Amino acid sequence: MSSFFASRWVEHPGHVTELDGGLPGGFRAAGFAGGIKPSSRPDVGLMVCDEPGVTSAARFTRSGVLAAPVVVTMERCRLDGLRAVVVNAGNANAATGRRGLDDAAKMQGAGAIAAGVREDTVAVASTGVIGVPLPMGALVRGVLGASGELRADGDRDFAAAIQTTDAFEKRASLSVALGGGIVRVSAQAKGAGMISPEFATLLCFVQTDAVMSAQTCELLLGVTIKRSFERISVDGQLSTNDTVILQASGTSGVRVEPETDDEVRLGEALDAALRQLALMIVHDGEGSKRVGRVVVRGGNIDAAVAVARAVANSPLVKTALHGGDPNWGRIAQAVGMALPGTAPLALDIAIEGVPVCSGGGVVPFDRAALERAVARDEVEYEVGLPGEGAETELFFSDFGHGYVTINAEYTT
Amino acid sequence: MSSFFASRWVEHPGHVTELDGGLPGGFRAAGFAGGIKPSSRPDVGLMVCDEPGVTSAARFTRSGVLAAPVVVTMERCRLDGLRAVVVNAGNANAATGRRGLDDAAKMQGAGAIAAGVREDTVAVASTGVIGVPLPMGALVRGVLGASGELRADGDRDFAAAIQTTDAFEKRASLSVALGGGIVRVSAQAKGAGMISPEFATLLCFVQTDAVMSAQTCELLLGVTIKRSFERISVDGQLSTNDTVILQASGTSGVRVEPETDDEVRLGEALDAALRQLALMIVHDGEGSKRVGRVVVRGGNIDAAVAVARAVANSPLVKTALHGGDPNWGRIAQAVGMALPGTAPLALDIAIEGVPVCSGGGVVPFDRAALERAVARDEVEYEVGLPGEGAETELFFSDFGHGYVTINAEYTT
Repeated sequence: MSSFFASRWVEHPGHVTELDGGLPGGFRAAGFAGGIKPSSRPDVGLMVCDEPGVTSAARFTRSGVLAAPVVVTMERCRLDGLRAVVVNAGNANAATGRRGLDDAAKMQGAGAIAAGVREDTVAVASTGVIGVPLPMGALVRGVLGASGELRADGDRDFAAAIQTTDAFEKRASLSVALGGGIVRVSAQAKGAGMISPEFATLLCFVQTDAVMSAQTCELLLGVTIKRSFERISVDGQLSTNDTVILQASGTSGVRVEPETDDEVRLGEALDAALRQLALMIVHDGEGSKRVGRVVVRGGNIDAAVAVARAVANSPLVKTALHGGDPNWGRIAQAVGMALPGTAPLALDIAIEGVPVCSGGGVVPFDRAALERAVARDEVEYEVGLPGEGAETELFFSDFGHGYVTINAEYTT
Repeated sequence: MSSFFASRWVEHPGHVTELDGGLPGGFRAAGFAGGIKPSSRPDVGLMVCDEPGVTSAARFTRSGVLAAPVVVTMERCRLDGLRAVVVNAGNANAATGRRGLDDAAKMQGAGAIAAGVREDTVAVASTGVIGVPLPMGALVRGVLGASGELRADGDRDFAAAIQTTDAFEKRASLSVALGGGIVRVSAQAKGAGMISPEFATLLCFVQTDAVMSAQTCELLLGVTIKRSFERISVDGQLSTNDTVILQASGTSGVRVEPETDDEVRLGEALDAALRQLALMIVHDGEGSKRVGRVVVRGGNIDAAVAVARAVANSPLVKTALHGGDPNWGRIAQAVGMALPGTAPLALDIAIEGVPVCSGGGVVPFDRAALERAVARDEVEYEVGLPGEGAETELFFSDFGHGYVTINAEYTT
């Protein structure tokens, strides 16, 4: 089995063991083809925690145009005690007005019946085409179908049901050795397009059987998202539907208390898992071939973040990455755009550790060696700004013909 | 002869007559193949005004990474009395450090000799690959070659010499009827990639034989740029080299005084010319097939501009435009990204005059009619925000396979 922790940019913690699949104790999941996707592939996922004492935390897109399921989940749920999650793919239920809100509420009600829990403990999430009413017959058929197939190893089916243009599954199943004993962590994500670091633009659901308070869930999710889903960009586009949910069933009996070594160790496991899932999303950017990482050091944090985003979202940088072209001039151009009025800027640029620009000017470098380095799967760009202190990073996908083919011909 | 004023978004003023070519009185121009471009095509342009009393105005990129010719022109020229312009294509002389500044100064010196004028009246401009030292032998060969071919109808050769990935020429030659008599206006532009509305990212040189002060040049250039080169985006990328220069020779003897009808009439002519040239640049966006116009009304001007840029620079909107897909959901998504934290947003969207979204929700529309409308060359998107007062527009190119092919395989 190939390692889940495939990227050189993710450290595989020694106390984390990869499993082939399966959910932590207390969870059951399923995926079902309700008929929302024209392809007849699974399009409704159901995740249920059987423990009434479940704790949870959630994060959502910051878009000014919120999809109906985001509004319903934010406004009508006890986000610290979510029992179930109902997700559909193939339709985003976004920009659907009053009817969309009613449909999302009905989806929540169907999930409550299917899971046998209260409505206000059921989160709803949707992904797919914007501006088309949710086909409720197909949705309800999917929820009821999924409820009949809930299994402790249903994470694979659940992960498949939430995908849209994803080319491969994004799923983790881990065993984590804490001082107090072994806990399990699993996660299922979907990505592909509309991925930007403003906030993770994706769906991701994370489960653990650790015993922890909702506050600890909140803390761990907040910290690990900052180093994963908030640090990626496929196409710079913030989605209307982004949702990330962490649930803890407590069935392991292993307690994770605030400010303990075990909190740090579980945090490291979640950090590695979400970071690798985030990188998988970048790798699966529509039509993507290579992943870039831009690290910006120096200056103040606002300038560093602006520079990282300008580089990561530049179609010129992205096409050069796709073409295996060590074109650092496009990095310099993007930096200049991010910092207007700062010329002359004593800018340093290195690609794969090879300095190409120092103090704003070109320096001699071995072009052939650099061309070999940028032809690999992962390419690292380092940008040095004048001044000290700030540091940030961003992972981004390249831009190739596949993105155009998918997005010029697919109504999302 | 097909009309220069080809876009429905540009009004052809009644007092403006199109000419086939040629420069206003007092100007001579040429283009020459010095050997900077590997293709052996013309790559050095020279524009000379033979009138010592010439007036002028100039505008430059606001990038934090300024190309050497921009620095030299800004710092070492009398921008209100430019006699000559030397331009090369094939090399941007950007991110070239101390040597780049020296090379740009030498280029200015070569231009002064070639034009027989003082160095501080010679503007220099470059476009092409970033981070490679300017090949000075080829550059000087080009300047000297061009100086031997200066002609009053050299505008076509000059326009050809400043192009890089441009697919067609961008050139205007107009006769303008003012109350005081007839004046001439000509302009030559280059565009293709790295075009963003932060400031026109392109080269454009404008000549007239009107008699006007440098202050009037400044006013007219500032106003007309705001409605043309500052309102376009090909790929959202601000260049290191953008330069726009207006020169007035005064040979017509027709005076254009401040706050007169003739100032307005000349302004209208310049406005129409630069707006059409800007649209030609958008149309010639690398691999572009269609041009979009987004008009945002309502809200405050900052929000309106942010929304217009988010729509114009969204690769999802651009690929949908390319594919002839009336996908208004991507417009809604881009608006939401531009205005985080404002949900619920009572957003209105119309495409080609057909309302598709009202108050944030989908409204019934004739999809077949809309599909026909978005298959045309120019597509208009209207976005209505809550509140009144602000209005802005932005022209943008679509995103197709051509852009990827050019930019994944071409080192710029």
